[in-house]
Order: sequence, then C-alpha cells, then structure tokens
Amino acid sequence: MDPNKKKQLPLAEDFIPHLAYDSVIFGFNGKQLKILILEYHNTGLFALPGGFVKRDEPLNTAVSRGLKERTGLDEIYLEQFYTFGDFSRYDPEVMRVILEANGYDLKNENHWLLDRFISVAYYALINYNEVAPRPDELSDSINWYAIEELPALIQDHQKIVEKALATLRENLDKKLVGMNLLPEKFTMKELQQVYEAVLGEKLRRTTFQRKMLSLDILERHEKRFSGRAHKAPFLYSFKSKKKQRHPSSA
Amino acid sequence: MDPNKKKQLPLAEDFIPHLAYDSVIFGFNGKQLKILILEYHNTGLFALPGGFVKRDEPLNTAVSRGLKERTGLDEIYLEQFYTFGDFSRYDPEVMRVILEANGYDLKNENHWLLDRFISVAYYALINYNEVAPRPDELSDSINWYAIEELPALIQDHQKIVEKALATLRENLDKKLVGMNLLPEKFTMKELQQVYEAVLGEKLRRTTFQRKMLSLDILERHEKRFSGRAHKAPFLYSFKSKKKQRHPSSA
Repeated sequence: MDPNKKKQLPLAEDFIPHLAYDSVIFGFNGKQLKILILEYHNTGLFALPGGFVKRDEPLNTAVSRGLKERTGLDEIYLEQFYTFGDFSRYDPEVMRVILEANGYDLKNENHWLLDRFISVAYYALINYNEVAPRPDELSDSINWYAIEELPALIQDHQKIVEKALATLRENLDKKLVGMNLLPEKFTMKELQQVYEAVLGEKLRRTTFQRKMLSLDILERHEKRFSGRAHKAPFLYSFKSKKKQRHPSSA
Repeated sequence: MDPNKKKQLPLAEDFIPHLAYDSVIFGFNGKQLKILILEYHNTGLFALPGGFVKRDEPLNTAVSRGLKERTGLDEIYLEQFYTFGDFSRYDPEVMRVILEANGYDLKNENHWLLDRFISVAYYALINYNEVAPRPDELSDSINWYAIEELPALIQDHQKIVEKALATLRENLDKKLVGMNLLPEKFTMKELQQVYEAVLGEKLRRTTFQRKMLSLDILERHEKRFSGRAHKAPFLYSFKSKKKQRHPSSA
C-alpha cells in the first residue's frame, strides 16, 4: 500500500456505533453461481464486502453507497435478508490484524472499530458482464469465487453466505431471481441454468419448462436465430417489466 | 403510576446504543387475527412491544428476554423478518413524551434513549388461550387489537405491522404458520380459518382442502367425536412434530 495514499479510518463521530452491514453479491456467468470476496492486504484474510452506516443516513442508502465505494458496483439490486447479532461474532482481534496490516496504529484500545458489531446482511444479484468490481483501499483484491470453492472467511461470514443462499433458493420463483441474473430476453434453457446454479442440482427439462409456464410469469417472444431455423429456441422475458434496482425503503 | 415503585431507566452503559427491536405478536382466537399493542401511561400513545439489547447478549436472546419482561410472554415462537433503518423513523419527541409522562426528568438532552434507533423486527405467533399478557411499568395496558382495527401507532410501527403481515402471508405454507396458532390436532375447517384470517379473505373449501392435502404436510388422525358420527370431521396434525419455540440462533 502506498503510504502517501493512506486514508483516515472512519471516524466514530460520523457513524452509528456497533452497526455494520455485509453483502453477499451473487453473480452468474451462464454456468456457475459465484460470490464476490475481498482479500485484505498482507493478512491472508478473506471477507464479504461490508461497511458502516452514517449517523444521518438511511440504512439502505448506506448499503448502496458503501457497496459502490468498496467494490465499484453501482445501481445493483439488493435485498435485506437477515440481521446477525450473536455475541460470538464479536472478534476484535480480526479487525485489529486487518487495520494494523494496513499501517494503522491502533493505540486506542477502545477504538470503535474494535467494538462488537451487529450486522444487517443483504444479498445482491448481478450479471457478470455488466460489472467491473475493484478493491477498496483496505483490500488488495476482490474476486469471484464459486460457491463450492470459497476460501475460509472471517468471523461468521460463512454463515452469512449460507443464509443468503438459503434465502435465494426460497425466493427463486417469488422474487424472480432470474430477472437480475439474465439479459432481458433469454431461452428456457438459460433460465434453467440459473435455477440449476442456485439450487446446486440438475433439473429435468420437461418438468422445469412445465412448471415455469404454469407460474404465468413469462412472456414468449420470437425465436432466437441460430442458422438452423427448425432448432431455434423461443425467447422469453419476465412479464413484470421493470428490473428491481434498489432496495425498498425502510 | 405509584412513585414508590418507580424504576430506573435502562442505563446507557448496559445496552448497545442505537439498536432496538420491535415485535409484532399475532394471536388467533379461531376467527380473528389480532396483534398485541401497548398503551403508554397518560399519553394516548400506542406502540408495538419492543426493547433493547444488552452489550454482552445475543440479539435473539435479548428479544426473548425483553418480550418476557414487557408482556409476560415466555417461550414463544419468534421470527426475525426485517431491520428498519430509515432516518425518518428518528423521532426523539415521542420518546420524551412517553418518559416524561412516566415521571422521568430528562434533564440530559443527550439521553441515549432519545437517539436515533435502528430496529430489528420480529413476529411471533401465539395461541390466545395459552397466554396472559401483562403491561410493563411504562405502559398502563396491553391489549389485543384486530388487524383491521389498530389504533394509530407511534413512529413507523404501522409500517412494521404491514411488513410483518406481508411476510406472514408469504410464509403461510413454507413456515407452517398454522402450527403455532392451532392446537396439536385440528380440523380442516379450523386450518382454513387460520388461512382466511391471515390472508384476510374467504377461501373455497374444496380448493383449500385439495391444496393442503397436495402439500403433503398433514397427517390424518381419527375423527372428532361430535355426537353425530356421520358428520364428524377428521382431525389432522402437521407432520413435523416439534413446534418451533425459539428463534434460530444468529
């Protein structure tokens, strides 16, 4: 880290103490479901992107703002899914190691960043091709990891990932998860690939197609031109036109 | 309020600042879905039961403990559903009115109870007949109100109720909501009454019965003796035996 570029730590007077957020950002490349993970400088420590809430800032605004600052991602669909408040997640040594590896001298043993934090967790769904994540100043990399191949994560971040994935599976039909992982028009096969990636299992083509059509959420369009007209698959889109881009206000 | 019984306000050093919880406690009497609402002494102000989290206490433990202290309810099923963090919910005057009406002199303008609070919201499902709610020392009553007949609530508590109800409706099948609102064995008609109360609409008996049986979540038992054997309805129970009594750890 360039010492000339060193930034000030977030100040206690600017933020709500004891309150953080963490985000599980799912991306889909047509085959695999992946998650964005930060690696902290000189520590070998991996974590979900997260941040803090300003004293005069709505919680959901803080999450959108912080995610943009920490990952470069803007205008993404976010959904709050759980608030983690076990006492066992309190682990001041991890934060100390991360900050000291970045050259911060934590003389003050009572620094607010070493306190116990309750974390409100959000998940996001994005399309690989629309985004270029970049690490923040505390991290030397931000990378996509397949959900089966995550590195060991700090604190209770693995538990947060598991809860996010469980929620995503429950919400597959209801929240039209596919809408945010696919282009506007897609084939039934592409939709099935999203479901298979999220559920972590293969589905029968005929059963899947029948179920999707029975939900009455898809609109059928022209066939996709493939050079072999008789094999061209139909394109579909979701009936509700507008992608959800922002968390609902609360 | 008896001044000799006056208790001390919660102390800043004992609790996590800026963090509260609120609970929407649904009860069912066989016909109507109701919610428990507190009325504060001498204010005409109505609110959801809520509380604060001790500095060394897990969030979910705090909610169970606080709910017992504030309402007399013990061992009830609780589910976290959303964390409310809008800046607009910050309204120190309401808390000042409530505390001053209870005889507390808030000389200190910076009292921690007048700060901005982020609130983690839980809902609970209980059976009318199993509980005897009692008001805490700040409140002169705690009463059941039908969801269509709620009084005006402080801050964003009406919004919290609406979100709780929306979540309850989404979870009707998935979380076996009926399990916590009914005795262990019940008739199909009683189950339908729970659904109708939660959904706020009448359902067709034949359609409802077909759907419930297709979900494969019910076990059929003997008929309920009614004196007219040929009219006696079958009794059912939910297949998963154990009632959920405690919030999942997190």
